Amino acid sequence: MDLSTASSEQLQQWHRELQQEFKAFAQQNLNLDLTRGKPSTEQLNLADRLDGILAGNYSSGDGTDTRNYGGLDGIAEARKLGADILGLAPEQVLAQGNSSLTLMFHTVMIGMQFGLQGKGTAWKQQGPVKFICPVPGYDRHFTICEQWGIEMITVPMTPNGPEMDMVEDLIRDDPAIKGMWCVPKYSNPTGAIYSEDTVLRIAKLGSIAGEGFRVLWDNAYAVHDLNEPKTLANIMTFCEEFGTEDSVIQFASTSKITHAGSGVAFIGASTKNLTALKSVMGTFTIGPDKVNQLRHLRLLPDYSALQRHMQQHAEILKPRFDCVLQHLDRGFGDNDLGHWQAVDGGYFISFDSRPGLAKNIVKLANELGVKLTPAGATYPYGKDPEDRNIRIAPSVPSLEQVDKAMAVFVLCVKLASLNQALGN
Amino acid sequence: MDLSTASSEQLQQWHRELQQEFKAFAQQNLNLDLTRGKPSTEQLNLADRLDGILAGNYSSGDGTDTRNYGGLDGIAEARKLGADILGLAPEQVLAQGNSSLTLMFHTVMIGMQFGLQGKGTAWKQQGPVKFICPVPGYDRHFTICEQWGIEMITVPMTPNGPEMDMVEDLIRDDPAIKGMWCVPKYSNPTGAIYSEDTVLRIAKLGSIAGEGFRVLWDNAYAVHDLNEPKTLANIMTFCEEFGTEDSVIQFASTSKITHAGSGVAFIGASTKNLTALKSVMGTFTIGPDKVNQLRHLRLLPDYSALQRHMQQHAEILKPRFDCVLQHLDRGFGDNDLGHWQAVDGGYFISFDSRPGLAKNIVKLANELGVKLTPAGATYPYGKDPEDRNIRIAPSVPSLEQVDKAMAVFVLCVKLASLNQALGN
Repeated sequence: MDLSTASSEQLQQWHRELQQEFKAFAQQNLNLDLTRGKPSTEQLNLADRLDGILAGNYSSGDGTDTRNYGGLDGIAEARKLGADILGLAPEQVLAQGNSSLTLMFHTVMIGMQFGLQGKGTAWKQQGPVKFICPVPGYDRHFTICEQWGIEMITVPMTPNGPEMDMVEDLIRDDPAIKGMWCVPKYSNPTGAIYSEDTVLRIAKLGSIAGEGFRVLWDNAYAVHDLNEPKTLANIMTFCEEFGTEDSVIQFASTSKITHAGSGVAFIGASTKNLTALKSVMGTFTIGPDKVNQLRHLRLLPDYSALQRHMQQHAEILKPRFDCVLQHLDRGFGDNDLGHWQAVDGGYFISFDSRPGLAKNIVKLANELGVKLTPAGATYPYGKDPEDRNIRIAPSVPSLEQVDKAMAVFVLCVKLASLNQALGN
Repeated sequence: MDLSTASSEQLQQWHRELQQEFKAFAQQNLNLDLTRGKPSTEQLNLADRLDGILAGNYSSGDGTDTRNYGGLDGIAEARKLGADILGLAPEQVLAQGNSSLTLMFHTVMIGMQFGLQGKGTAWKQQGPVKFICPVPGYDRHFTICEQWGIEMITVPMTPNGPEMDMVEDLIRDDPAIKGMWCVPKYSNPTGAIYSEDTVLRIAKLGSIAGEGFRVLWDNAYAVHDLNEPKTLANIMTFCEEFGTEDSVIQFASTSKITHAGSGVAFIGASTKNLTALKSVMGTFTIGPDKVNQLRHLRLLPDYSALQRHMQQHAEILKPRFDCVLQHLDRGFGDNDLGHWQAVDGGYFISFDSRPGLAKNIVKLANELGVKLTPAGATYPYGKDPEDRNIRIAPSVPSLEQVDKAMAVFVLCVKLASLNQALGN
């Protein structure tokens, strides 16, 4: 379906066919949902052993009674697992509560309000604060910036990560840039893995940035491979080379490993950063839920157990992702109506329509009972300047449902594109 | 031992006797600890059924799969339990994570930074911010104020609660007072229960206070009775009478009910306050650990189950508290060396020595291997202006250890008092 070379009659003919297809779907009263980056029920089942796994033994490896108060850092074995996930030493990692999002929010709060380098270093005391936001990106990162009144400067994502020439120019020119969001492996939503060169250049930013600059390295999909595990370059190793260890703060969690919403989140950083973070954390918590950490470590006692566990996730997820990619290939492999990247992990496939169509596609799909993430959600303030990016999340529906929902999706993209070409 | 009427010879004689007793204790190489308001191992054991209690059924009452993301409010049955503890309706309560301290910190953050009544209502935009802090009080409340740069105005505690004439005068005169900390039942550390009249007058404060004033009602010991359960007047009922529903935000948790540090915390407030709180909470969490909430509700399915559970706690704790009170009665019942209040619940006994002695008493006890909470900890900035208040926490040590530690304590109070009387 090549719109640019087709005759007017051909376009009209396609339009009639697609409208009939649309009506046929409308009669099916579908109720499908491709919006949520959540694990499916089958995936959640993989961790059901968590409840009861302690068998009455609440002691962590060093004899700590996890049932009582205390231990701001988290239990030692949980810090070790977090360190293995993030490529750090256990003493560089704190194991915390059920949400890495909360850890990120607190990190921004401490940076803004109290200072990540001790008293007098709060960003807010240095004038307006700006963050670099690669786009498309994760809406909840943007919401944190919005909440704290941080100006967001967008930079385009490439298949190798953020457009680094632009990032470096921005940071060199503007010391008010105090942060940068990164989802370095299976980026949300594009699925890109930052290349080694990109990771190296990000590690170097600390040496050209303004005072107090921090990369917030949200490694949410560190072990969420669909195919052979891919390796992300270790940013801390590069930082050590460049003396920029304080410029990166890392995050991860087990939310999409065990049970979403009742897992363990990790924060990894230099001793200086951890000291600053802990001095504030100690004012609002006596410590994380150590019992739940212990449960997790009984289920996933080491990194190889974790990898075997993730292999089971991949077996459940991969057919759904393959199905999405097949539909996109079939629908748009031979034309210019859509662009996307095949992904090897993570939770999303990012789709770009022709400019100006995303909102309309989402609306059409909704009319057919297929919920899609609102167009624009992957941009700050929910505004995609080209109105073309749509995030597809196929983990929750069954394979059959993904198949049906993607047929609807492809139809809606074609119909919206045709309407545009026909000036409807 | 009446120091004021004793002859100089008598004082010298007592001093010699006490010093010998001191030496005898010193030889015992004690290692005892009366510092921590934590549950003892026996108490923690009461909730060990929590792990495994789900028996594979992760669905809450309304069919929610607690293993997945979502549900900022907490599960319905947990909100109901929190509501029963706080004397509120379930829709006035959010069931959250493992720490009510975190909820209090976030409430202060939202009040200071973002506003509890929507945009433009942040306290920080209205000039310097002050809180009323009844003293002696809970050090972690004071630390939150310190962290946010909130000036603390102290008001003395009475056996009926804070000195309310003073509180009302302060609040009427100074609209910069935006908050007041309260531990209304078994106050930390005095053990006082706010009288009905005090609760009524606190409920009325909202009508005389400056814009955005909030009472932070930390009902940490709501169900932690040692004897017959005592009833605290319901502040929300009074607030409804006076139209001040928005002026009180309540907190509670299961930390000293089930396992400390891995429980469920509650926040209770008016719809307006909850809406404001949730609009910010939604930026930093997708929701609390619902699986853990479900576990708690299987263990404590309703309020009467909770009461039976707390009865078991009381059976473990009461002998320890009785032991403390017996030592104090025997040591100081017939003299003016110490003042304290017999308590019916909570985790502490608050002891006042003669002025100027608390630090010295703590030091002497430490020399004998008995750790006491640092003198001053119950006052803002750790500074007790009269240097006389010491918080005794007898829950963790065994009865035998409490007995020994209290013998040391009484000795140290006497010795410090005698040293002072003798001008040593």
